[in-house]
Amino acid sequence: MMLNTYPRDTRFHQSVDQSSMNCWVKFIYTYFPIVTWLPKYSWHYLQCDVIAGVTVGLMVLPQGLAYASIARLPNNYGLYSSFLGGFVYCVFGTAKDITIGPTAILSLMVQTYSIPHCGDLAVLFSFYVGIILLFMGIFRLGFLVRFVSVPVISAFSSAAAITIACGQLKDLLGIEHLHRDFIGNLHDVFSKAGDWNFYDLGYGIVCIIILILMRLLSKLTWDERMHIVKIYFYKCLWLCGIARNALIVFISCIIIYVLDFKKLNEFTVIDDVKSGLPDIKPPEFTDIRCGNTTLDFVDTLSQFNSGLLVVPMLAFIEAIAIGKAFSRVNGYKVQPTQELIAIGLANTLNSFVSGYPVTGSFSRTAVNSQSGVKTPLAGIFTGCIVMLAIQFLTKMFQYIPKACLGAIIISALIMMIDIKIIRSMWRVKKIDLFPYTVTFFGCFYSLDVGLLLGISCSLVIVLYPILVPFIDIETKDVCVIRIKDNLYYTGIEHVINKVENIIDQSNPPIVILLDMIGVNIIDYTVAIEIHELLKQMETRRPTTELLVTNVSFGVKRVLIMAGLHHIITSPENVSERFEDSHRLLYD
Amino acid sequence: MMLNTYPRDTRFHQSVDQSSMNCWVKFIYTYFPIVTWLPKYSWHYLQCDVIAGVTVGLMVLPQGLAYASIARLPNNYGLYSSFLGGFVYCVFGTAKDITIGPTAILSLMVQTYSIPHCGDLAVLFSFYVGIILLFMGIFRLGFLVRFVSVPVISAFSSAAAITIACGQLKDLLGIEHLHRDFIGNLHDVFSKAGDWNFYDLGYGIVCIIILILMRLLSKLTWDERMHIVKIYFYKCLWLCGIARNALIVFISCIIIYVLDFKKLNEFTVIDDVKSGLPDIKPPEFTDIRCGNTTLDFVDTLSQFNSGLLVVPMLAFIEAIAIGKAFSRVNGYKVQPTQELIAIGLANTLNSFVSGYPVTGSFSRTAVNSQSGVKTPLAGIFTGCIVMLAIQFLTKMFQYIPKACLGAIIISALIMMIDIKIIRSMWRVKKIDLFPYTVTFFGCFYSLDVGLLLGISCSLVIVLYPILVPFIDIETKDVCVIRIKDNLYYTGIEHVINKVENIIDQSNPPIVILLDMIGVNIIDYTVAIEIHELLKQMETRRPTTELLVTNVSFGVKRVLIMAGLHHIITSPENVSERFEDSHRLLYD
Repeated sequence: MMLNTYPRDTRFHQSVDQSSMNCWVKFIYTYFPIVTWLPKYSWHYLQCDVIAGVTVGLMVLPQGLAYASIARLPNNYGLYSSFLGGFVYCVFGTAKDITIGPTAILSLMVQTYSIPHCGDLAVLFSFYVGIILLFMGIFRLGFLVRFVSVPVISAFSSAAAITIACGQLKDLLGIEHLHRDFIGNLHDVFSKAGDWNFYDLGYGIVCIIILILMRLLSKLTWDERMHIVKIYFYKCLWLCGIARNALIVFISCIIIYVLDFKKLNEFTVIDDVKSGLPDIKPPEFTDIRCGNTTLDFVDTLSQFNSGLLVVPMLAFIEAIAIGKAFSRVNGYKVQPTQELIAIGLANTLNSFVSGYPVTGSFSRTAVNSQSGVKTPLAGIFTGCIVMLAIQFLTKMFQYIPKACLGAIIISALIMMIDIKIIRSMWRVKKIDLFPYTVTFFGCFYSLDVGLLLGISCSLVIVLYPILVPFIDIETKDVCVIRIKDNLYYTGIEHVINKVENIIDQSNPPIVILLDMIGVNIIDYTVAIEIHELLKQMETRRPTTELLVTNVSFGVKRVLIMAGLHHIITSPENVSERFEDSHRLLYD
Repeated sequence: MMLNTYPRDTRFHQSVDQSSMNCWVKFIYTYFPIVTWLPKYSWHYLQCDVIAGVTVGLMVLPQGLAYASIARLPNNYGLYSSFLGGFVYCVFGTAKDITIGPTAILSLMVQTYSIPHCGDLAVLFSFYVGIILLFMGIFRLGFLVRFVSVPVISAFSSAAAITIACGQLKDLLGIEHLHRDFIGNLHDVFSKAGDWNFYDLGYGIVCIIILILMRLLSKLTWDERMHIVKIYFYKCLWLCGIARNALIVFISCIIIYVLDFKKLNEFTVIDDVKSGLPDIKPPEFTDIRCGNTTLDFVDTLSQFNSGLLVVPMLAFIEAIAIGKAFSRVNGYKVQPTQELIAIGLANTLNSFVSGYPVTGSFSRTAVNSQSGVKTPLAGIFTGCIVMLAIQFLTKMFQYIPKACLGAIIISALIMMIDIKIIRSMWRVKKIDLFPYTVTFFGCFYSLDVGLLLGISCSLVIVLYPILVPFIDIETKDVCVIRIKDNLYYTGIEHVINKVENIIDQSNPPIVILLDMIGVNIIDYTVAIEIHELLKQMETRRPTTELLVTNVSFGVKRVLIMAGLHHIITSPENVSERFEDSHRLLYD
C-alpha cells in the first residue's frame, strides 16, 4: 500500500503528560486538540498542508455537486456542506488525515429521511444529527457502535452503493421524476425507456471508463532512485489521477460550452447553481415549506423518524472507521469521544450555513493522507477552495452535464462494493454470512430496517451461548459436565436440564461433576438454581452426588456465600476418589 | 418441608418409549398428556383426587370472590374464572399438582390493563392472552422467560403484593371510588379518612389475625406412630388450616345474617353475586360497553397495549415456576411447551364462559399437593365444587363482608413478600441488587415498566463482558493478555485497545501473547481486527511480535482460515523461548 511510503516524521499528537495540569488546562487539552499541535507548527507543515488541502479541494468540488444529486437536493447544497467541516475539524478533530464533508451514504440517508428538493429540511436534519452526535460525545455513548459488526457494515455499504448507483441511472439516462425507493426507481427507469437520452447515456459511459482508467494513475509510486524528470512526470500523472473528477468536470464544461455556442448541445446539464456564499443563519425549525406543504416542528420530527438514530450512528461509524484505519497506518491515536464532539459540532454549525449532514469521507481522507497532510489545518485550505468556487465558479457549473456527475458517483461506488468479503466469510466463519445476507437484502427494502435487522442478527449469535452455554458431557465413573461459557441466569436452565436428564437415567452415575472451567462469574439466580437442584436430587436421587470443580475466585465466593461450600471440590480430590477418571478429566 | 412426607408411590407420567410409535400416536402423546395417565387410573387414585379436588374447591371459592375485587370486577367473574381451567388442564397439563385459576398477580394485571367493572373487556383480554400463550407454545417461544431472573421475579412479586394490599385498604376501610394507581390510591385513602368505616376496619383486622393463626394449623405434621385419635384430631386441625378462608367466609356470613336479621349490621357487604352458571358464548370483540363509552376493536387493543406482552409472560412464569417447584419435589417432569399450550387453551376457553385471565396458583397448588393429589383429574372435582357454588350458594354470598375478603387477600400476600432475599443477594452477589431495586421501585410507577426495566438491567449485566471481556495482563519478558471470556465483535475493540496501549509504551515487550484460555468461539470481525492490528504493528512496532496461544479447536479453525496460522503457537513453544516466563504463564 502506498500510504506506507510516507515517512512518519511527525508524531501527530504526541501525548502530553496531563497528570500535572490543573483541570482547566486539562479540559482545554481534551476538548480542543488543536492546542496540542498548533504550538509546534512549522513552515514545512504549512507547505504540506496547503498542497494536501488544495488537492482535496479539487476533489470535493465535483463530489459535493454530485452527492447533492444523490440527496435529491439542489447542487449548491453539496458545496455549502463542504467547507465549514474542515474549519471545525481543525479545532476539534484528533486525526490529521480525516476530511469532513458530504459522503455518498449520508447523502443517500438524507434522500431517505428528507423530502426531495427541500433544502431547509435537510439543513434542519443536519442540525439535529449534530446535536445527537454531540450528546453521544458528552455522555460517552460512542461504545454503542461496537454493536455494529464488520459483516453488517460491509453489507450495508454494498447495498447502499447499489441503491445509489441505481438512483444515478436517472442522470445517466436523462430522465426525471422517479420513485425514491429501490424497486420503484428501477421500475420507473424501464417504464420510461422511451424518454432515455442516449447522448447522456453514451457520455456517461465514456466518463465512467475514463475515470476508472485514471484511477489507476493515482496508484503510481515512485522512489528517490528514479530520474528527477521521471519523478516529476509520475507526480503529474498521479495528480491527474487524484484530481480526475475535477479534470473530467472541467473538460466536460468546455465541451458543453462549445456545443452550446454552436447550438448543438443534446446533453442534459445540471440545474443552475446559485452563486455566492450562503447566508449565516440558524436553520428553520418550524414552517418549513416543501413544495406545496408546510411542515411544523412535529411534522419535521415525524419525517426524520428513525433517521435521528440511524444517521448519527452511520456518521460516527464512517468517521471512526476511517480515523482508525489511517491512524493505525500513520502512527497516532484517534479519540472516539472527541471525534463524536468534532463531527457533532461540524454538523450543527454546518446547518447555520445551509449544509446537510456530513462526516469523514473515505476517498478524500485517503487522498489527503497520500498528499502528505501534516495537521488538520489542511481542512481550512480545502474549505477556502470550496468557498472561492462558490463565489466565483458557479457560472461555469451551469455547463456541467448531469451524466458526468452520475459517472463520478458510479465510479466512486466501485470502492464501496466488496465482493471478496463473502468468500472470506465463507472460509473463515460461515455463520457471519447470516447477518451479512439479512443486512444486504433488508437494505433494499429500507436502509434503516436492513441495518437494524443486521445488528439484531449479530446480537442473536452473540446471545446464543448466553441462553445455551457450550458444555461437554463425558461419563465414566463420574459424569463430567464441562461448562465452557459464562453461566448467567439465562443459561442455567440449560445446564440444569442436562443434569436432570442424567439423574433420570436408569443407572445414574455416583458423582456428577460440574467442571466450571470456562466460568468467570455466576449470578444470584445460578446459585439459587443449583441450590434447588441439590434439594431435588436429595429427594429423587439420594445416591448421586453433585460436585463443582475448577471454580474461579469469583465463582467460589458466590457459591460459599450461597451456602454451597460443601459441593466445591478441587480437581485433585476428584481424581483421588476416582483414579480411573483421572485420565478422563485431564486428557 | 411437609410436602416431602407424601411417599412418591406414583410415578406420574412415566416416560413412554416414543421411538416405535407412528407420528399420529406420537402427536397425541405429546399434545394430550391425559393419554399417558388415564389408562393407568385406579380407584385409589380417584379417592385421593376427590379429596384434593374438593379441598382446593373450598379454597378457590373465597379466593375467586376476593381476587375479582383486586381486578375491580363484579365478584361473580372470579367464580366464572375458576372452574373451566381444571377441566382443560386435566386433558392438556403435564404437572399433576398445578391448579389453574385466578391469581392475585394476574388479577392485578387485569385491573391495570382493563377498565374497572367492565367484565366484557376482561373476558376479551383472557381470549387474547390465551391465543398469545398458544402461539408461544406452538412456536416454542417458552425460552423467552429465561430472560427473567430470580431477583426480577422476586422484586416484582413483592411490589405487586404491596400494591394489591394497598388496593385492598378500600375494602378494609369501607370506602369507594379510589384511583387505580399506587400513589393516587394511597392519597385517596387518607384524604377520605372521614369516610372510614371503623366496623369494617376492626372486623378486617380480626380476620387477618385469625387467618394468620389458622395458617399455622396448615403446617401441622403427624406420623403413623401417633395415637389414631391424635392423628384424626391433627388431620381435622390441618383441614381447618387449609380451608381457613372458606371457614372464615362461612362464619362471617352467619354473623352478618344474624346482624341483618336484627337490623344491626354496620358492615359493608359485597355486591350481589349473580346466580347461575354463565352462558357459553364467544367474547365480544367489538362494541364493548364500559360505563358510558363503547369500545371498538382498535380501542380494545390500545387499551390492552403492552399487557398483551406482559400478561402472557407473567402467566407462563407463574405456571412454570410452580410446575418446576412441585415437579422437582414429587419426581416428575413438566414440559414447558405443553404447559404453554395448556394454559393458553385454558385462557382462550375461559373467555367463552366469562372468565378473566388465569394461570397456576401457588397457594392452591401447594394445598393440592399436600392433599395427596395423584393426577390432574382433581381439577375436575374442583371445577364441580365451583359450579355447584355458582348455581346454589350465591344467595349466601350476599352476606359476605368486604372486609373479610380484604383480610383473605392481605393474609395471602404475606407469602408473596420475600425480605430475606435482599440479605441473601447482598451476601451472595451484590450486583443482583441492582435489577432487584430497579424492578421493585419501577413497579410502583407501573408494573410493566418495572418488569421491563428489571429485565433490561439484568441483560446489561450479562452483556457487559461481551462489550468488555474480562482480561488479565501480566508483563515480564512476554506480555501475557489472558482473555477469560468469549471474544465477539462487540468485545474485540477492548482487547485491541489494551494491545495498543502496550505497544505505545516507551519500552514495549518483545512478544505480546494473547492467551485465549476462556475463548470458545471468535467471529469474522475478530479475525479481521486481529489482521488489522498485525498490519499496524508491522508499521509502528516492527520489534514486537503478536502471538496467540491456548486456542480451542474452533478458534484455531477461524484463525487459520483468516490466514493467521503464523501467529498461533503452543504454550510449550512460548515457554521454551522464554524460560523465565514459564512460571508466569502456568502458575
